[in-house]
Amino acid sequence: MQRPLDVLGSSTDKRIIIKTKSGDSIFGILKAFDSHINIWLDEASIDGEKEVKLGKVLIRGDSIVYISPEK
Amino acid sequence: MQRPLDVLGSSTDKRIIIKTKSGDSIFGILKAFDSHINIWLDEASIDGEKEVKLGKVLIRGDSIVYISPEK
Amino acid sequence: MQRPLDVLGSSTDKRIIIKTKSGDSIFGILKAFDSHINIWLDEASIDGEKEVKLGKVLIRGDSIVYISPEK
Amino acid sequence: MQRPLDVLGSSTDKRIIIKTKSGDSIFGILKAFDSHINIWLDEASIDGEKEVKLGKVLIRGDSIVYISPEK
Amino acid sequence: MQRPLDVLGSSTDKRIIIKTKSGDSIFGILKAFDSHINIWLDEASIDGEKEVKLGKVLIRGDSIVYISPEK
Amino acid sequence: MQRPLDVLGSSTDKRIIIKTKSGDSIFGILKAFDSHINIWLDEASIDGEKEVKLGKVLIRGDSIVYISPEK
Amino acid sequence: MQRPLDVLGSSTDKRIIIKTKSGDSIFGILKAFDSHINIWLDEASIDGEKEVKLGKVLIRGDSIVYISPEK
Repeated sequence: MQRPLDVLGSSTDKRIIIKTKSGDSIFGILKAFDSHINIWLDEASIDGEKEVKLGKVLIRGDSIVYISPEK
Repeated sequence: MQRPLDVLGSSTDKRIIIKTKSGDSIFGILKAFDSHINIWLDEASIDGEKEVKLGKVLIRGDSIVYISPEK
Repeated sequence: MQRPLDVLGSSTDKRIIIKTKSGDSIFGILKAFDSHINIWLDEASIDGEKEVKLGKVLIRGDSIVYISPEK
Repeated sequence: MQRPLDVLGSSTDKRIIIKTKSGDSIFGILKAFDSHINIWLDEASIDGEKEVKLGKVLIRGDSIVYISPEK
Repeated sequence: MQRPLDVLGSSTDKRIIIKTKSGDSIFGILKAFDSHINIWLDEASIDGEKEVKLGKVLIRGDSIVYISPEK
Repeated sequence: MQRPLDVLGSSTDKRIIIKTKSGDSIFGILKAFDSHINIWLDEASIDGEKEVKLGKVLIRGDSIVYISPEK
Repeated sequence: MQRPLDVLGSSTDKRIIIKTKSGDSIFGILKAFDSHINIWLDEASIDGEKEVKLGKVLIRGDSIVYISPEK
């Protein structure tokens, strides 16, 4: 049986987009996640009012609306 | 006895609409869900200020107001 | 002794109104609920800025302010 | 020793006022409550922008700011 | 060793001020509290846009910012 | 190994500043804290739209953004 | 297997940036963190409407959106 977090398992080392409750979009390469949907991205950038390069970033799970692999 | 999450169980591999607390509508094919109502959609698109194709997406349960199968 | 969720137990298969924290009113026939007050409605419609027919819908308990049987 | 929820225990079958986080005032006769402060009112009405008669209502505890017996 | 809730233990039967997340100030005599910081006040009044006498009131802990004994 | 709450342990009986999610700054002498980061201050004042002297105050942990010892 | 909080483990005694849900950016040297992502920074400053030097600061985990090591 499939589970929702399998979306993350199959995206490790690939580029994903994260939409936060604060309205920002964070892009980067998924390195790790846990059951709280805390996320570690590498080569990340954030696209809010202006794009900012973040490099490595830890995003707290409870600030996330959705996560999508880049096509 | 029926339970609310049976709505999801009977909608697997069918198109559903998800309304988020941030006011977005996300459409797609339900692939998986868990007890936190975390949702995995395929062929998803989001209809906020403008429609954006997402493809595969994981939606965090605590950002969801309601979920409805498409008619 | 009575408990608050008995309001729901006595409303199964009857029409109820749900007010959400996002300010919407959702109407429909109560089919099932659980201890988190997650709700499954049939023949539902939502009355926000404009009325939309939803059909079957699962409403997440933590987005609900109150629930009232229709008179 | 007294506990805060004793305010509710001594108000059963009496009229109370509930103030919600959404800014509404809900009036009615207290029929039941639980440890989450979920509340069942009878003969309830809500006094927001305009007064609406609700009859029987279940109010979710986590949407409540305060509860006060009517004088 | 002292604990934060000792502020409440030493204020029983004395007048306190409660500031809520909704921006209201509630004044009254502390009768009881619990570990969730749910509060029972007697002879309470609320000082929002206008002062309203509440009498006895139960305030839900998770709607509170701070509590201070009156000087 | 150090833990974040050691910042509080080393600040007991010293002046600290607390920033709340409601945007207020509360100043005072730290008397006690617990694992929820509930805080008891003495000789406290709050610096919102105008400064108000609070004296003794209990601040609920979940309304706090950050806490900093005064320099 | 890697976990998201490893981003913090490898950043101890290094400068990081924390973005809070209130929209502030807090900069400083990471001294300690725990499983709730509560954070202790030294030599911290906050860059909101104006930059303020904080020195030592404890940031509550549930007010954090993301954390990134400075490049």
